[in-house]
Amino acid sequence: MASPFDVTVPDLRRRTSLKWHTYPEDVLPAFVAEMDARPLDAVVTAVTGAMLAGDTGYEVGPTSPRGTAYAEAFADFAARQHGWDVPVDRTRMVPDVMLGLVEVLGLLTGPGDGVVVNPPVYPPFRSFVEHAGRHVVDAPLTAAGRLDLDALDRAFVDARAYLLCHPQNPTGTLHTADELRAVGELATRHGVRVVADEIHAPLVVGDEPFVPTTTVIPDAIALHSASKAFNLAGLKAALAVPGPAADELRRMPEIVGHGVSHVASIAHQAAYRHGDAWLADVRAAVRANGDLVAATLAERLPSARWIRPAATYFAWLDVRDTPAVVTSGTDPARLLLETGRLAVNPGPTFGAGGHGHVRLNLATSPRIVADALDRLTTTLGSPA
Amino acid sequence: MASPFDVTVPDLRRRTSLKWHTYPEDVLPAFVAEMDARPLDAVVTAVTGAMLAGDTGYEVGPTSPRGTAYAEAFADFAARQHGWDVPVDRTRMVPDVMLGLVEVLGLLTGPGDGVVVNPPVYPPFRSFVEHAGRHVVDAPLTAAGRLDLDALDRAFVDARAYLLCHPQNPTGTLHTADELRAVGELATRHGVRVVADEIHAPLVVGDEPFVPTTTVIPDAIALHSASKAFNLAGLKAALAVPGPAADELRRMPEIVGHGVSHVASIAHQAAYRHGDAWLADVRAAVRANGDLVAATLAERLPSARWIRPAATYFAWLDVRDTPAVVTSGTDPARLLLETGRLAVNPGPTFGAGGHGHVRLNLATSPRIVADALDRLTTTLGSPA
Repeated sequence: MASPFDVTVPDLRRRTSLKWHTYPEDVLPAFVAEMDARPLDAVVTAVTGAMLAGDTGYEVGPTSPRGTAYAEAFADFAARQHGWDVPVDRTRMVPDVMLGLVEVLGLLTGPGDGVVVNPPVYPPFRSFVEHAGRHVVDAPLTAAGRLDLDALDRAFVDARAYLLCHPQNPTGTLHTADELRAVGELATRHGVRVVADEIHAPLVVGDEPFVPTTTVIPDAIALHSASKAFNLAGLKAALAVPGPAADELRRMPEIVGHGVSHVASIAHQAAYRHGDAWLADVRAAVRANGDLVAATLAERLPSARWIRPAATYFAWLDVRDTPAVVTSGTDPARLLLETGRLAVNPGPTFGAGGHGHVRLNLATSPRIVADALDRLTTTLGSPA
Repeated sequence: MASPFDVTVPDLRRRTSLKWHTYPEDVLPAFVAEMDARPLDAVVTAVTGAMLAGDTGYEVGPTSPRGTAYAEAFADFAARQHGWDVPVDRTRMVPDVMLGLVEVLGLLTGPGDGVVVNPPVYPPFRSFVEHAGRHVVDAPLTAAGRLDLDALDRAFVDARAYLLCHPQNPTGTLHTADELRAVGELATRHGVRVVADEIHAPLVVGDEPFVPTTTVIPDAIALHSASKAFNLAGLKAALAVPGPAADELRRMPEIVGHGVSHVASIAHQAAYRHGDAWLADVRAAVRANGDLVAATLAERLPSARWIRPAATYFAWLDVRDTPAVVTSGTDPARLLLETGRLAVNPGPTFGAGGHGHVRLNLATSPRIVADALDRLTTTLGSPA
């Protein structure tokens, strides 16, 4: 297997994006959701071809004969990957997943309405919902990282919509069909609409399947994009996919599509069309890196706890009982940055349940993972 | 001079963006703001390099040492092009100009507040303002396409902000320093804040200079992007630039920057750094195309009226007195599409003052302009 993570630190430092240009050079970055991956050739070829052809105008809209090109590429991918029959003609393109979620929430809720989220969860869920003039209602995951139906039942009383993170970032939890079915019944009973961020869906790394939310909850709306699984955060585009009983996308104003980048659409289509083998290699490499984490923690930091993720390339580590955290009472991400010179995402930024946790990015070479684990186990393994 | 518009129709049809994929093949597209231009080599090289390097992660934010790279490239360009001293450290990146305008309006106005626009004007001004929950107050341009201070004085009574289009799209008007000064005084008197879309600023095609709004109105905020002048609508990024007395960008949430495309930022920086000669060629070619329009209309359609633009690559044609429009009473864009198989932007979509007008795109080869003018003069020159 050719690993897409066969990259060197000097190569990575030549990139100009956030991951390798936020901290000083002696800090190893393992924080933001960027992959240290070699690019997928088909994407490089497609974007280079577009640039040479001057194909840098506006993305085609729903009125163009080519207006469903992105949705068709995604639908074929989703059929192969998830056995999912995507309703191409009812989808809508949006600038990116977060802006798409906000637009969908705008269709389903009014100003001041409650929107439920499940901490620990991707921090922008909270900020974007609040910036859109809605208020966040927390329904924390269980200690095992699963959806908590009782917490949802209570939260839904004050809410009109539910922002589901599926797979869950940072825990890597895949919600099961049974869980989604129970959520759908609860939501219907409370008059709450489910909106699912499914950007991590292609990154299944365990044995459980990804179950598309809209196949179980018919009036849900899901957001998809190639940007996470194919490391294209810098080329933004996304697709809103309605369930069979969700009609609101027809009311989404035409101008929402103006924010879509045509070149990003070209890149994502190439990824969806030609990226299966590359993606399989990424998943295998993330699994192997997970094995390395498990073995290293068992041997050198047994006080750390970790539920291996079913999806995503993150390790969500509970390090609250490690010697350094216990003796110092300091947030572990701060200890790791200041002492270990390792940048991870601090658990508390993910909300309730994040205390004493860190999110470690495993989408990188085994050598860099090993370096990160050295810094982590050394820093946290002895009293601070 | 090597014209960037040295392109052929078969080349253009191989592009996959909106302009050449909205209408059937027998329709000549001269409508949307895409250029039929060969790309700028420096942009192709920069984007290709980024793709090969896998440099497709998140755009750096304000906390990164590299966080002002885009603003610095723009500031150097603006100094050369406009003699403008841009306050780099006070700028903020936004996903694109329209999303940036909405975010700035969110800082300056509340739900339901009035926002003044000057029709005829770029149609999304109206749609985005309404989608953001503000109401549009019209202050039409004068018949000569200038700002109407009396109309503004009346409109400002019901408004908190003023969305200035500078240069004006579709008329190509450059507002003068004196006009801007008078607008600023009026706005201050009414407690109205000026927000300027300056995306067409690099496309000055006459002898008048572009005067940056914030250099005359100190509490204005302007939006800039390389996407229009360098034909990069498909790679979106933009910059909000505050005047010396505008402090509100400090309150813009960090998450607004999440929507910025890093690869677009790389493309725009290359354009700002290395695009002056290409841009000069574009402006000269647009001027030459304008000469062709003037000569052709004078000879073959003298009932058409046209004020030549000081900026933009549009011809905003008043064809209400042409034989076909007079005899049919039909919107000229419809006549042109149905009879002449020429797609232009219909004047009425630009609001008040758009009746009987069409917007023709001159950013294309002289041969295509000649073809468009053949279709236009033939269709409108005889009774319908």
